[in-house]
Amino acid sequence: MNYHTFSEDTLRNFTKSVFIKMGCSTEHANLATDVLIKSDLRGIDSHGVARLSGYVRLWEKDRINAKPNIQIVYETPTTATVDGDGGLGLVIAPFAMKVAIEKAIMYGSGWVSVRNSNHFGIAAYHTLMAVEKDMIGFAMTNASPLVAPTFANERLLGTNPMCYAFPAGKYPPVIVDMATSAAANGKLEIAQRSDKKVPEGWIQDSKGRSSVDPHELKNGGSLLPLGSDKDHGSHKGFGLSATVDILSAVLSGANYGPWVPPFVAFLDPPTDPVGKGIGHFLGAIRVDGFRPVDEFKSHLDNWIARFKSAKTVSEDQKVIIPGEPEFAAEKDRKINGIPLVDVVVNDLNELAVKLGIKKLV
Amino acid sequence: MNYHTFSEDTLRNFTKSVFIKMGCSTEHANLATDVLIKSDLRGIDSHGVARLSGYVRLWEKDRINAKPNIQIVYETPTTATVDGDGGLGLVIAPFAMKVAIEKAIMYGSGWVSVRNSNHFGIAAYHTLMAVEKDMIGFAMTNASPLVAPTFANERLLGTNPMCYAFPAGKYPPVIVDMATSAAANGKLEIAQRSDKKVPEGWIQDSKGRSSVDPHELKNGGSLLPLGSDKDHGSHKGFGLSATVDILSAVLSGANYGPWVPPFVAFLDPPTDPVGKGIGHFLGAIRVDGFRPVDEFKSHLDNWIARFKSAKTVSEDQKVIIPGEPEFAAEKDRKINGIPLVDVVVNDLNELAVKLGIKKLV
Repeated sequence: MNYHTFSEDTLRNFTKSVFIKMGCSTEHANLATDVLIKSDLRGIDSHGVARLSGYVRLWEKDRINAKPNIQIVYETPTTATVDGDGGLGLVIAPFAMKVAIEKAIMYGSGWVSVRNSNHFGIAAYHTLMAVEKDMIGFAMTNASPLVAPTFANERLLGTNPMCYAFPAGKYPPVIVDMATSAAANGKLEIAQRSDKKVPEGWIQDSKGRSSVDPHELKNGGSLLPLGSDKDHGSHKGFGLSATVDILSAVLSGANYGPWVPPFVAFLDPPTDPVGKGIGHFLGAIRVDGFRPVDEFKSHLDNWIARFKSAKTVSEDQKVIIPGEPEFAAEKDRKINGIPLVDVVVNDLNELAVKLGIKKLV
Repeated sequence: MNYHTFSEDTLRNFTKSVFIKMGCSTEHANLATDVLIKSDLRGIDSHGVARLSGYVRLWEKDRINAKPNIQIVYETPTTATVDGDGGLGLVIAPFAMKVAIEKAIMYGSGWVSVRNSNHFGIAAYHTLMAVEKDMIGFAMTNASPLVAPTFANERLLGTNPMCYAFPAGKYPPVIVDMATSAAANGKLEIAQRSDKKVPEGWIQDSKGRSSVDPHELKNGGSLLPLGSDKDHGSHKGFGLSATVDILSAVLSGANYGPWVPPFVAFLDPPTDPVGKGIGHFLGAIRVDGFRPVDEFKSHLDNWIARFKSAKTVSEDQKVIIPGEPEFAAEKDRKINGIPLVDVVVNDLNELAVKLGIKKLV
């Protein structure tokens, strides 16, 4: 595959002009851009500007509202339900996290369930907002059904990620950001593009048989929950995914399970919705609600140092602290630029032509 | 294996008399008993009265304080750190959950991190306290190191369970209660007793090679995180386990990672502790902090009904809703009694002789 490398600023300006063309306010365009670029900087190429034309296609079909009236519709001192008015998840989730953080400043913790939203980008963006305030960040979202629960032969859950983020001292924050399926959809897409077999345990075919063919999802197959099969704990991956679905959607009034509208514009949303849009769940708790921040950070540093220096199976593979590779990628890409594969560059150029803005190259 | 079946009351009276003999107050003895019996009723035989003699052995070594002064040592309106004074986790965790629930009644949510505790029994007991108040319950605990993180050849984490519990309407509550390792230690113990091979992906041997020998842990092997290997997402199981460890111990001032003291009395605690005892993390959020309770319950009922009726791979295996089998077991065992294997009965009888109380049979 061929790559073109772009500076952060170039991609930022391009992305912002797309959101402005969609009719977003400058504030929303800046924020949505920041979320997407953060993903590319962190090396999560599947969730950055590669998704931009997907958001535009949903907007063209009136499935994303560029001028949402995002509102708190229900609340207590430390909880709230936010209605995103069908806007970009990229701006709704940061709004909700801000609400959570404000509640945490006042009362120690804040929790917000969100309905009527769309794809919110990388969960880590939102939890990092909390980490910057010396809080622990929580973020989850449900997503279009691709995953079959243990024993099922039907896609009933999304890859429903969970993210937990903790501020450290001298080390980067610990950030656990994971799909609750055995493999994230992005990994499957990479295998599809290169036509490579995937490991057993990622997918099942339309009859529920284990398969290594990455194209099986197009033929009625499903992704499998983390754990892959019952013997290896797939009921746990199912349980985690169910937790994300319930906190994000049953609690907020969004669609859940098989009713979650697809992220792709060529598939229509279910005609019998059980709620509004997709759902998220965001939370922030103040570290100093439990112990002084410097004590916590110094012990988390000690935790990180101990795990980094663990005895390993192989000499050339150290234990990886969650969030460490993404932090390293961001450091590198801020200096050396963000590489995009040609197929993404072409897609963005076509988007530019369609919207009448300057092409990327 | 031979079984003896006992009524709930018989086991309850026996267990209570053991805790009284240890010097627990009547209130604490009743509570600790309730937690253990709940486990046996729910069919989690590994965490019930089968553990009773283990608690006693730790008490004999002065590693459990029968008369703890359990205290809140740090707090905000919705957060608190509880010091368990080295007491039974079976009484400390319910104390902490009560604090969380009281905070949630006032402010919408409550979160308590606990240090200086011991094994807290089944996590589901504590989350059910929240469910009874129409709240969503959260419970986690760290535990003695048995699990090697991805790429490590060293036991650095416990099986660190997470539990999430949601009140439903006409259905039993949805309760996700899971070790973050590929297999819980209890499952390994069953394989050890019957000398049966375990599936690949549960354990690695002392050299970090995959093994199917259940006795490998005695020879320097380790349990593996949920996901089993990197290809199948073991870094996610590691991330979840890390999350439990940080929320339970780095946040509260308990021991974490390889410093967590062992639950078994024949292994000494590390001589260089980084905190006090083991740690838990408990939380409660009010459903009506987000939407009316009856709306939530009716949608959760709809969620459950949809998943229960999912198209399945095999005709004779339905999708299992998390918490459903345990609820069924409790219903059955309340009527038909609790079966204990002879080895547990003998162990309890020996305990009775040692403590000078009436034997079980």
